[in-house]
Amino acid sequence: MKKFWPYGFFIVLTTLILLHSVSSVSQKGSEHGQLRVNSQRIEKRIMELAEFGKDPRGGISRVAFSEADIQGRAYIMTLMQEAGLEVNVDAAGNIIGWRKGSDPSLPPILSGSHTDSVPNGGKYDGALGVISAIECAQVLKENGIVTRHPLEVVVFVDEEGGLVGSRAMIGTLTQSALDVRSHSGKKVGEGIVALGGNLEKLADVIRKRGDIKAFIEIHIEQGSILYSKNIDVGIVEGIVGINWWTVNIEGFSNHAGTTPMNMRQDALLAAAHLIIAVNRVVTSEPGRQVGTVGRIRCEPGVPNVIPGHVVMSVELRDLSGEKIGALIKKIKQEAASIAEKTGTKIHFEGIDAAAIPAPLDLRVQRYLVESAKELGLTYLVMPSGAGHDAQNMARIAPTGMIFVPSVGGVSHSPKEFTRTEDMAKGANVLLQTILKIDRD
Amino acid sequence: MKKFWPYGFFIVLTTLILLHSVSSVSQKGSEHGQLRVNSQRIEKRIMELAEFGKDPRGGISRVAFSEADIQGRAYIMTLMQEAGLEVNVDAAGNIIGWRKGSDPSLPPILSGSHTDSVPNGGKYDGALGVISAIECAQVLKENGIVTRHPLEVVVFVDEEGGLVGSRAMIGTLTQSALDVRSHSGKKVGEGIVALGGNLEKLADVIRKRGDIKAFIEIHIEQGSILYSKNIDVGIVEGIVGINWWTVNIEGFSNHAGTTPMNMRQDALLAAAHLIIAVNRVVTSEPGRQVGTVGRIRCEPGVPNVIPGHVVMSVELRDLSGEKIGALIKKIKQEAASIAEKTGTKIHFEGIDAAAIPAPLDLRVQRYLVESAKELGLTYLVMPSGAGHDAQNMARIAPTGMIFVPSVGGVSHSPKEFTRTEDMAKGANVLLQTILKIDRD
Repeated sequence: MKKFWPYGFFIVLTTLILLHSVSSVSQKGSEHGQLRVNSQRIEKRIMELAEFGKDPRGGISRVAFSEADIQGRAYIMTLMQEAGLEVNVDAAGNIIGWRKGSDPSLPPILSGSHTDSVPNGGKYDGALGVISAIECAQVLKENGIVTRHPLEVVVFVDEEGGLVGSRAMIGTLTQSALDVRSHSGKKVGEGIVALGGNLEKLADVIRKRGDIKAFIEIHIEQGSILYSKNIDVGIVEGIVGINWWTVNIEGFSNHAGTTPMNMRQDALLAAAHLIIAVNRVVTSEPGRQVGTVGRIRCEPGVPNVIPGHVVMSVELRDLSGEKIGALIKKIKQEAASIAEKTGTKIHFEGIDAAAIPAPLDLRVQRYLVESAKELGLTYLVMPSGAGHDAQNMARIAPTGMIFVPSVGGVSHSPKEFTRTEDMAKGANVLLQTILKIDRD
Repeated sequence: MKKFWPYGFFIVLTTLILLHSVSSVSQKGSEHGQLRVNSQRIEKRIMELAEFGKDPRGGISRVAFSEADIQGRAYIMTLMQEAGLEVNVDAAGNIIGWRKGSDPSLPPILSGSHTDSVPNGGKYDGALGVISAIECAQVLKENGIVTRHPLEVVVFVDEEGGLVGSRAMIGTLTQSALDVRSHSGKKVGEGIVALGGNLEKLADVIRKRGDIKAFIEIHIEQGSILYSKNIDVGIVEGIVGINWWTVNIEGFSNHAGTTPMNMRQDALLAAAHLIIAVNRVVTSEPGRQVGTVGRIRCEPGVPNVIPGHVVMSVELRDLSGEKIGALIKKIKQEAASIAEKTGTKIHFEGIDAAAIPAPLDLRVQRYLVESAKELGLTYLVMPSGAGHDAQNMARIAPTGMIFVPSVGGVSHSPKEFTRTEDMAKGANVLLQTILKIDRD
């Protein structure tokens, strides 16, 4: 191969930068840089937790407030005790495992996730974040390490039903959310009481900016990016905002045999153009925004009548609310021209935003990246397309998230699977990052 | 205006042709060419029949075999008797009003339609064809005219449920059709018995080629072509064939947040491309073919999941079966390329053809055109996009159809409306055509 001077120069320069980076890191990370989680213990506990709510069809049905949820939480509390944590259930039903720090004036470092599942879900979603946080506490205990900051391992209540526990912690849990009927059959408020919470004292659960040093959550990716690119861990730069619209298309229902093609006002033909427009607008600019039409209903919905009315959903997600706004503006422009072309009326109704974008803390991200590098792991800075308790915590505390690969990108399914070694890699990044933040 | 020689020449030539045409016609049509139907009597009887099954929501619910259907048929039989017809109910439940001809060796001329309606339908669909045929018989009686051929006014049973009466007459009524549960709640076979039919003797109802001199049906257009072009009558050249396909599109259902746009296999996006392809293929060549996607179901059908499976209908109609075949071939080619582009699988399943194309008799068409011309009516030779008993009768007898304008093209609706003068124009074409065929 022909030698090419600038290329060689680049390699030398990069190597110098990397050496500098590693040396500066190894100074910071020297104290407990060799600490590692016990991968077999993580794997064993994931499998033990999966016994609670094991679905005879395969998979896990451990919906919030169900008997399986209650039993799974009891199991988790025994693990916390084994790890030397002081266990409490707060007024919202969140489990808090507390570990004393050496400096009583410092706020706690929090890590955790959730143990409830969707109906017929998988073993890893949520569970990994809880068991990894307990693992970190246990490794510290086993190595006689006391951090400066207190540590708290948090099991947020009813994540799958709408991030209930973290909403309580940031003070945005409304009465209407408490009145929602959960998959367990209980209303959310009733469920919280069944878990040992106290609706009268929900205000005690609220934490304010400054109360928490940092929150870090480790979670399976639930997508296939890390797995397909063979990358060890994802460092989440933010959790996307989600906006939903219901689109009504009014055409004119008519006889499919007696109405010539040029006299039709076919609402489904208009919908087809709009579905393609959503895809084209979203993919026509760089970035990781996504847009989905997942629901469609067509009336009267019989083969021999021209559709007179269509209702469809449009969902957009991105880290930037401005970008979502610009995309929907373009989609609406396309819709106006489709309506004119097809003789229909197209109306967009914005639905209460499922989530506003939640950028994660840059300082925590830097520690996560440093930890991954020290551990010799490959990593990717990436958005989270799914919602997590971390998006709430980011509103009151410096927050970070670690993703590990989901085999095949499958999640919310009995087929959800993450390899033991991948869970351990993520948990080691969590452990090292907690230590770095503690020294910060 | 500047005189323009070729234009003037064209007018003179056209006038000569028209004069020749009128003079040749008036020779043939001279005997009873001045006979006219009684428009007020037609209107009155349409309104009287509409009292049976009058729907409190508006419109007519006189579904086959219902009490309203039975009462409506009894009313029609009184009209037949008033018109001097000998009334019988055949084994299939069809009402036959018979009028003797002067030559016992000649086969009968048939005219009629149906009196059953769709649920919440209109006053004119079917009713016009029955009442007009009775009107013709009554005018002949009032004028002391005896035709050479016998006349038969037919009320076909259960047209809206699948052309049941005419299928019986051509010998294609199957046991499975008799077992269908009708809108009345009765099975079709039970309904036929309730109307006075006899399932043991269905074979007696069958007519063979040569048994019938001609069948002519007058019907509202159920489309907006005549109304929007302000044309008096339509002369139907044929009843379109109808083919249905069920299309299954298999994609891959996935998380709408964590699956990048370029890693999706979105079944609904593929469906959208296919809906547009159906429209494009059907409209990209001249002709009156129509293509419709009227039904779509998308799974799992929630806003935040990429659709993994879509089922949709494709319906094509044309007077030519070959054209329908060529169109679906092109649509399937487009589907193959859509499947490749979207990472989906698209499968077409042909459904039992609702109808094969039924070209109508050219000789009868010519008589219909001549009658329209003699009556000074504007006419359009056109296909029927909807199905009619005439499409069955065309398989065993020279058959013709007359359409009259539906205001706004509305049908199968309480808003169905045809003006008295338009009904009378069509009925006069029927009357004159019966007389012409009788002299044939």
